[in-house]
Amino acid sequence: MENCIFCKIVAGEIPAAKVYEDGEMIIFKDIEPIAQIHLLAVPKEHFKLLSEMDAPRTALVGCMLAKIAAFAPKLGLDGGYRLVINQGEDAGQTVPHLHIHILGGQKLGWA
Amino acid sequence: MENCIFCKIVAGEIPAAKVYEDGEMIIFKDIEPIAQIHLLAVPKEHFKLLSEMDAPRTALVGCMLAKIAAFAPKLGLDGGYRLVINQGEDAGQTVPHLHIHILGGQKLGWA
Repeated sequence: MENCIFCKIVAGEIPAAKVYEDGEMIIFKDIEPIAQIHLLAVPKEHFKLLSEMDAPRTALVGCMLAKIAAFAPKLGLDGGYRLVINQGEDAGQTVPHLHIHILGGQKLGWA
Repeated sequence: MENCIFCKIVAGEIPAAKVYEDGEMIIFKDIEPIAQIHLLAVPKEHFKLLSEMDAPRTALVGCMLAKIAAFAPKLGLDGGYRLVINQGEDAGQTVPHLHIHILGGQKLGWA
């Protein structure tokens, strides 16, 4: 989608520190990390909300979670990790392209 | 699984403030809320980690996300919400049964 920063990263028009890429998703470093390791997993297809998922997108996001889990040890997340999906204004979703925050590399607080 | 608190809630052996239930998942109120609305979505099948997902579990978790998104307005989450999945020790996963935190009902902070 035009003017979507994550679509531009997917297209290679904006640089990003990619750590993983396949046909359906990319994972790159968040430029404003809030943990020792802070990555963003982004589907290559543009959509904003989980509520916009049809069956193929539902399968895609499920597979994203499985792939993140499979690659977590290679990403330095052997000790565990937190996945965060912000949806809409109350959650502070800043980019209108679905993304999964991957946080770890340290003990994470709660509340 | 024996001695799993979430399995006991699924089985009705421990009470919980359920807000949704179908054949595959339940959603109930977290007893230690960290937001105005704090729910837990739990698959009825016991497994701890996303890394333990085979194809059916991957589809199950994808469908859980789709159902959470579809029901969010009915749960009072019209303004948006945050989903959090804690995996392992660094994330502070306190119950070894996969669960998705659903947070909202207010503006949520970040970092």
